[in-house]
Amino acid sequence: MIRTAAVVGTGVIGTSIALALTRHGVSVYLSDTDRCAARTAAALGAGLVGTPPAPADIAVLAVPPGRLRPVLAEQCARGLARGYTDVASVKAGPGREVAASGVDPAVFIGGHPLAERERSGPLAARAELFQERPWVLSPSAHTGRDTLNTALELVALCGATPVLMDSQAHDRAVAVVSHAPHVVAALVAARLEHLSADAVRLAGRSVHEATRMADGDVQLWGDILENNASAVADVLDELAEDLAVTVAALRGLAAVDADERAQGTTLLADLLTRGLAGRAAIAGTHGLPGHARVPVRVLIADRPGELARLLGTACEFGVTVEDLSVDHPPGRPGGLVELMVAPAAAPGMAGRLEDRGWRVQRAADPAGVRAQSPPHTARRGPVGARTAA
Amino acid sequence: MIRTAAVVGTGVIGTSIALALTRHGVSVYLSDTDRCAARTAAALGAGLVGTPPAPADIAVLAVPPGRLRPVLAEQCARGLARGYTDVASVKAGPGREVAASGVDPAVFIGGHPLAERERSGPLAARAELFQERPWVLSPSAHTGRDTLNTALELVALCGATPVLMDSQAHDRAVAVVSHAPHVVAALVAARLEHLSADAVRLAGRSVHEATRMADGDVQLWGDILENNASAVADVLDELAEDLAVTVAALRGLAAVDADERAQGTTLLADLLTRGLAGRAAIAGTHGLPGHARVPVRVLIADRPGELARLLGTACEFGVTVEDLSVDHPPGRPGGLVELMVAPAAAPGMAGRLEDRGWRVQRAADPAGVRAQSPPHTARRGPVGARTAA
Repeated sequence: MIRTAAVVGTGVIGTSIALALTRHGVSVYLSDTDRCAARTAAALGAGLVGTPPAPADIAVLAVPPGRLRPVLAEQCARGLARGYTDVASVKAGPGREVAASGVDPAVFIGGHPLAERERSGPLAARAELFQERPWVLSPSAHTGRDTLNTALELVALCGATPVLMDSQAHDRAVAVVSHAPHVVAALVAARLEHLSADAVRLAGRSVHEATRMADGDVQLWGDILENNASAVADVLDELAEDLAVTVAALRGLAAVDADERAQGTTLLADLLTRGLAGRAAIAGTHGLPGHARVPVRVLIADRPGELARLLGTACEFGVTVEDLSVDHPPGRPGGLVELMVAPAAAPGMAGRLEDRGWRVQRAADPAGVRAQSPPHTARRGPVGARTAA
Repeated sequence: MIRTAAVVGTGVIGTSIALALTRHGVSVYLSDTDRCAARTAAALGAGLVGTPPAPADIAVLAVPPGRLRPVLAEQCARGLARGYTDVASVKAGPGREVAASGVDPAVFIGGHPLAERERSGPLAARAELFQERPWVLSPSAHTGRDTLNTALELVALCGATPVLMDSQAHDRAVAVVSHAPHVVAALVAARLEHLSADAVRLAGRSVHEATRMADGDVQLWGDILENNASAVADVLDELAEDLAVTVAALRGLAAVDADERAQGTTLLADLLTRGLAGRAAIAGTHGLPGHARVPVRVLIADRPGELARLLGTACEFGVTVEDLSVDHPPGRPGGLVELMVAPAAAPGMAGRLEDRGWRVQRAADPAGVRAQSPPHTARRGPVGARTAA
């Protein structure tokens, strides 16, 4: 059982862990090369500055990956704790560093708490940072049972969910679900840089959403990508292969030859279908099922309280609004509110909102499809029938 | 001035245009190869089934792109209208078709009303479909002044904003802002298909958002991409070049050689910076500025009305909530509401919400950064100072 802990490095991650532990009655000892940072963490209630009088039950090394090896060696030599873990967002490299450090590998276990990114500043640390978030633990073949169990308790005290993963599998996973998508968002966004003013006006909500990841801090993301460079490059290599096939398929579709066109159609349908399968694979995580919600769109006036009044009406009807967005074009009065509700609830809700005087734009498509309207929708008649002159 | 109009093809686009025109007192004549579709449109109040007694002021040919040429030739021969436009989401191909049709080019102007996608069904058509949306008009060198002015009036009657664009520029623009991003979202999503169950648990909100476009209907998107295949392929070719540079940069970062690493860092920073510039280029469209909002995160209980109560409190404070999302993990009580507000309003709002008893998770980063937390944040201490042991 964890009664004492040492946190080395009182940045946002280290301080947040310390805050969570002190809330559970753990005696936490804080240290940092910057004494001022450690004292600030202590002032926030994260623990005491200094080293524990006896080896702590666990030490969290919340230091940059490049510092892990010397810090671990130094703290083991002075007997800071009985077990050690880190918080690096990559795991294979640090694991190798530890193996090469000469430290008893039984006392170390790699860790990666995944939290919504906070930037910096005194308010960034909070005890709830890891609440209901995954926290990867990557034991090596030599990690002791005691070390593993202490780390599991640490994760539980922080309110996180432990996920045991091999370090390579972890690095590959974060490359696929986070690092590579970030790079690709930047690549797509880069295409928008030199658009004409007219072309920019055609940008809809979808491309905003698809490129939002590219807003990240350049220095910070450069560091992240550097630390997982090989795994990210592997994912992007695979993507580049698919991309080459896609471009070939599109060139085929633009060709005169009927066989080439047919092959292009098949290849493209295959790619899009695989995209759907990938979306289905992550559906349900973060409460964002891909297909289970439909929008009810309501035009609202630009007055304080309109949105709350609308939500209040929706709640009266007993409808659970699972998500909501407000589209408020600058310089225009009013906005368009998109309430995401269960497909079964949408038609009735739209009607009842209209009865109450709300201006509802009716819609029947799932949340994900927000692209520009193509002429093909002209085929879909008011009775869903073929349409041509 | 438009007093009479003909709509050929009463799908969702044609019927929506007809509804908007009839609301403004225009006499609209509807036709469709499927008489039932035309009659349904008429029953919805979109106009009368049949041909106008005299040439209409404008005819909207809301037919699939492949049908445009024969329909235009046929309707011109019978003198349906004084001017003609289409609604295809690509413009260069239809323009060539019209030029080759033998029809007087003065009476035709290409058009593309951009609307949030609706799928099918009788409720999909609505008079407001194009309200405050861009509507591209692509006159050829031969389009008459009368035809252009009548089309501008049509756009105004539908509540849309006209954007005059050359057909090639249009096709390239929709490739960049819509079609290519869709393909790339599918490519990123395809990587998620074979993730292990553990890896899926690491998927955060960012990757959901970045891949949401990939949810689109495979058949429909296959059609869209086919009609703009060359322009989309050109955009993806450019992206592939950048991707190759990025992969090389990442391989350089993973190298031992210091020069290679330094070059990798520079290349990667350049790419990420270009991504930021692209994001800045589309900021402000759709009321979604890239950097001007910060989240205030509030934990709410799973009770009807909680969200409305929270919004009501926010409105009381006079704070404009520009966007809002609710993260509601399945099987868990309560949810995390993210209110997007102006950076200046966030700190005060968080404090006042806490004073009222709301549980606020404080945050200081902009909306776009929602990625997994890396160890590097450990460098950012509670006082923003260097952190290491």
